Order: sequence, then C-alpha cells, then structure tokens
Amino acid sequence: MKFTCQKSDLYEVLPNVAKAASAKTPMEALAAIRLSASGQNLELTGYDLELGIRTAIPAVVEEEGVLLADSRLFSELVRRMPDGILQIETDDHLKITMQGGGTECQLAGMRADEYPDLPDIEQTQGAVIPQNLLKNMINQTIYAVSLDETRPIFTGELLEMENDALNIVALDNYRMALRTEPLPGQEAMKFVVPSKALREIEHLLGEDEKNEHPCVIRLDQHHASFEVQRYVVYTRLLAGEFINYRRSIPDHSKTEVLIGRRELIESLERCALLISEKNKTAVRFQFEEGKVLISCQNVIGSVDDTLSCDMTGEKLVIGFNNRYLLEAVRAIQGDRVRLFLTAADRAVKVMEEQGENSIAIIMPVQVRR
Amino acid sequence: MKFTCQKSDLYEVLPNVAKAASAKTPMEALAAIRLSASGQNLELTGYDLELGIRTAIPAVVEEEGVLLADSRLFSELVRRMPDGILQIETDDHLKITMQGGGTECQLAGMRADEYPDLPDIEQTQGAVIPQNLLKNMINQTIYAVSLDETRPIFTGELLEMENDALNIVALDNYRMALRTEPLPGQEAMKFVVPSKALREIEHLLGEDEKNEHPCVIRLDQHHASFEVQRYVVYTRLLAGEFINYRRSIPDHSKTEVLIGRRELIESLERCALLISEKNKTAVRFQFEEGKVLISCQNVIGSVDDTLSCDMTGEKLVIGFNNRYLLEAVRAIQGDRVRLFLTAADRAVKVMEEQGENSIAIIMPVQVRR
Repeated sequence: MKFTCQKSDLYEVLPNVAKAASAKTPMEALAAIRLSASGQNLELTGYDLELGIRTAIPAVVEEEGVLLADSRLFSELVRRMPDGILQIETDDHLKITMQGGGTECQLAGMRADEYPDLPDIEQTQGAVIPQNLLKNMINQTIYAVSLDETRPIFTGELLEMENDALNIVALDNYRMALRTEPLPGQEAMKFVVPSKALREIEHLLGEDEKNEHPCVIRLDQHHASFEVQRYVVYTRLLAGEFINYRRSIPDHSKTEVLIGRRELIESLERCALLISEKNKTAVRFQFEEGKVLISCQNVIGSVDDTLSCDMTGEKLVIGFNNRYLLEAVRAIQGDRVRLFLTAADRAVKVMEEQGENSIAIIMPVQVRR
Repeated sequence: MKFTCQKSDLYEVLPNVAKAASAKTPMEALAAIRLSASGQNLELTGYDLELGIRTAIPAVVEEEGVLLADSRLFSELVRRMPDGILQIETDDHLKITMQGGGTECQLAGMRADEYPDLPDIEQTQGAVIPQNLLKNMINQTIYAVSLDETRPIFTGELLEMENDALNIVALDNYRMALRTEPLPGQEAMKFVVPSKALREIEHLLGEDEKNEHPCVIRLDQHHASFEVQRYVVYTRLLAGEFINYRRSIPDHSKTEVLIGRRELIESLERCALLISEKNKTAVRFQFEEGKVLISCQNVIGSVDDTLSCDMTGEKLVIGFNNRYLLEAVRAIQGDRVRLFLTAADRAVKVMEEQGENSIAIIMPVQVRR
C-alpha cells in the first residue's frame, strides 16, 4: 500500500472513525482502524461488531492495499505530523511508514484478513430525515435511556415512523422522554437503536438548515445504517418488544402548572448539592395558587425555595427524584415548562409551554404531605 | 453571627480561600473555612497548617461572630444561590442559614475554637516584587520542582535576593530551572517555599503592569506571607540546605546550537507518543552542521525528524529524557532556544536565544553513538 493525502483531511476524520474501534478487546483487530487505499480514495473503517463507522478521503494511490493500524496510536501520530502532504506506505513486514516535512514515523500494522465485514444491509426499509431535526430529537430524549443491561431493549431508543410523523422514545420503569415531529412521505417502520450508536450519530449530524444533505437511513431485520455527512454509521438493532409507550402518557390532569425553566433548574441544582448516593433525598414540591415551594432536607442541610408560577386546578404536594426531573426540564426548550399533575402517586407530564412535540413522563416518589 | 453581603463578592473569593482548606484530613476543622464577621467586613480563612489563605470582603454586620463552614459545601451552596444580596446568620446550634431571593439554605456550622491560628510572622525580613514578574518567574521554573518527598527541600523553590537581583531556582538530581531578574533595592535573603504555595501564589498574581500593587513578602525563620491582590498567602518554609546551584551551571561549551522552539516541541511531542512508563525510551539527538536528527525508537514504532538549526563547534550525539527536555523548552520564551553542550555525558544548558535570565540545566541519558 502506498498513497499520499492531506494530513488535515486524514486527521479530520480519524477521531470520528476511531470511536467505533473497540477500546477494550482481546481481539486486536477490533482495536484497529482498517485502511483501504484504492482508486482515488483512502477508505477508513472502525467497527467493534456493534457499531461501525466508515468514511473516505481523497488520496493519490500509487499502490493499492488494505491494512489495519492501531486506532489510538495511528490517530495520535497523524495528529502530531507536520501539516501538509503526508505519504504513507507499508512494506512486506506490514510496517507503516509515514513521511511529511522532515519527519518520518513508523509503526507496526496488522493484516486485514480477520477484520470483520460491516453488515451488508439488504435494504427492506428506509427513511430520509433532515439532519438538524434528527440531531435535536436525539439530543432531547437520550438522557432517559436506561443503563440497565439486564433489559437491553431499553438501553436504546425507539425510532417510529407512522402517520406522517417521526417519534423518538426513551423509557425505563420510572420515566420516559418522547419527541414527535411531522415528517410526511415516509413509509411506516419501527426499530430500536442502541444509545451508543445514537450518540455518535448525534455527534456527526450537522445543522444543514436548507436540508440539502438529509440523513439517509437503511435497515433490514437486524441492522441499520445512517448516512450522515461523509460518514456511514452502522449499528445492530436491539431485538425485543418496546412496550406500548403511549399507555404511559397521562390523558388528563387535575393540576396544571407553568413555571420558569431557568429558576426551576437553578432550584433543582441547589437541591442536588445535598443529594448523593448515600443521601438520596427526594425533592418536595408544594404547588399552591401562584407559587410553588420546593424543598429538600437531609442530614447535610436543607434548601427551601419559593418560585412563582401559574397554577390552575387543585393544590398538590408531590415528590421527585431530583435528577429525573432536572434532566427532563433541561431537555425541554423555551422559557417556561408546563407540568400536568393528577395525584402524589401518579405519573407527571412535563412539556414545553406550547405544543405537544416534546413530552417527558416522570413517576413521582413519596414525600411527607 | 449575622451579616449581609453581595453574593458575587463572596463567591469570587471562596474558591481561592478554599484551596488552602485540606481536602483530606481527619481534623474536620481543617476541611472548613473560617468565617469571621466584624466591623464592616467578613474575613475568610483557609489553613491546612502548611498553606493558609486569608481575605476579606465588605459586609454589613448586624451581629459579630466567628464560625467554621465546610469548605466545599458552603462554596457550592453560595455559588447556586440567586444573585444579589445574601443574608447569612447562625443560631445557637451553629446552624448556618443563607437567604437570598426566594431561596433559603441551611447547613451545619462548627465552632471555631479549635481552628489553628495563622502563623504570626514577626517580620525579620521582607521584599517587594512586581506581580507580573513574580508570576512569570514562578511559571517558568516550577516544572522542575522535585516530587520526591524523601528530600523535602527540593519539593520547593529557592527564592534568593542578592546583588540587586531575584533568583528563583528549582532542581533535583537530573535537572534545574533558574530564572534571574534584576530587582534593585531589596535586602539580601534566601528562603525555600513549598511548590504547593507557589502554585497558589502564581494563580492569584495578576498582571498589574503599572506596578501599583506589588506583591509584599514578609518572612521570619519558619514562615513567609505573600500579600497578593486582596489575599494574604501564608506558607511554612522548607528547612535544610539548598545545594549551591551555581556549581551545576556549565561554564563552557564545545557545541552551541540555535533551534526553532516550536519545531523542537512538536518533535518531542511526537516522540512522546512512543514513550510510556513501560517504554521509557530516550530521545537521541545528532547535531550536525546546519541540522539536527532527532530520533526515538522502541517496540511501539519510531520517529525520525530532521530539523534545521544553526550549529557552531563540534558535532555531537547525545540523548535526553524526553519529558525533561520538553518541559524545559516549553518554559523558555521566544522563537528559538539555545543549547550549550560539551559532551554526551555532561549537563546541557538550555537558554533563550538572547540573554541569560532563563536557564535550564538537564543531565543527558545514554544512547547508542
């Protein structure tokens, strides 16, 4: 293999591709990046059998070839090479030599024979989604993904296309985040994507406000690919039944509150100072006409806040897990958030001031009345 | 104790004072900040018996008093309080109540009886140093302070005032950093300050380019105080004999090299990618007419750089500990650095392109010729 390319081109894509190389693996090949020089391109692939990222950069290829290079060391060496043209070649012993400016670096490469193939998606379904829309929808829901590996299906998010709308849902036993956006002209489909892949996709997605390069999704029964900018992200899908999340959405309320988002976040952050693994104290909310008393008290100290709010309906005292409420309120946009409550032991709906596109559901916890 | 102050005034100084509170201590009082309200001030003190920091902010004191508050929790709670006026008071049970906006926080305080007194410096000597000068001199030498606690004297820096100049020196068995600046009108003195105190002093020192508020140093046999901005930093001094560092400075050279600082740093950073605790490879320098070949090679890979340089005197092959040379070159100012070499086993002097105010001495390590 022998080629030249711009160092800046190569370094720009390397950290992104490297994210799909496995940091901890007994299989050395999975810790590597696959470099393939052919035609007028250098193709780069990272793949840990769950998540794969592939891209290509322009290169002047003198001798075609395929080879693996340690992902971390190769990325770091490229980063530290002088700017400008980089010449990379390998010898019969798989030694990789990089040259540029007055600098020459060598490191050992590996044969690519045993590198796993990326999933060959025999497309049965597909969708096209504006980049900024998908980015925003992932960003506003992914906090609610479960970390509990014993129920794998909930460690991912449901992407659901139906009735000319896209729904993205994350949930566990105690809370749910749901984002809905109209997206006409797509075929109906449902699939659950691991959160690790979604975080990488979110990271690669750009603004693309004119929607000139939408994200193209292809999927078969077990895998999906997301074409994002110049990258293709491959992920396995999570198998199993995602419960009927719509049933968890409360359909009525006895108390409705509009409250300043910034003030609520600040109050919850104050309470967080008293809360730890050891002192998992709930935050108590007492909703009254025109105000809410927020309090948290344990052996460390206490916080008592009074925030003004618009309330309609019945007075109510209710408790929350501080982190669950904080993450939901942070993910909601706008100056004020709307809370729909029915009783101290019933799920609470958190939404934007207007509209129903962004919904968080949180189960309350017990506090003294 | 009862007083009001501006939250912003209090929060500005708290993180700085908290740095002198001990993070790990069985003595609870040492993990606290001492608050003392009297007259028109709130005085704040952190002190871990080695390093002390004291300051004061304006406060409207309704009831004078002294009390300890947990440094971390108190700082964090103040940070999260609403902006504006903060009212702080304590009750008979030492409970501290903070009020501001619609927020009230409480935390437990402690009696200040057992809090240690800051050193009472019966001034025998003193000096006045421009802030930016002292900041710069600490910054350019502190990297060379020894981490070896078995020889405590070298875990600090020597501050030496003599012949109308200030010298600051850090050294261990393998290297030395020395900064010298003319500073007329000061009495002669020598003392060794622990690096922890110097790092806090460096952090607090400002630019003060007109030299309106120089740093005032007072010292007795065992302690020193540094008045920096609105803070006074107290430190114990390190006891023992600081060796005659001047003897370590080579007084002649057979090879003299002028080399681009940026290029040298980049080359050493590339070599650093191959070097670890497990692979402590030396960097080999081969100085020839007009160029230097820099190389580093081990089982991980190799780096070979060719940099142009101005060389006078004899050709030479010499090896360096990568980190020692890198830290010395980073601390030197200007576009080029000057190296004075005599032989492969003799100390090397690293200096600025012009002048002798900034000197690093490094012992070479063995490499193949």
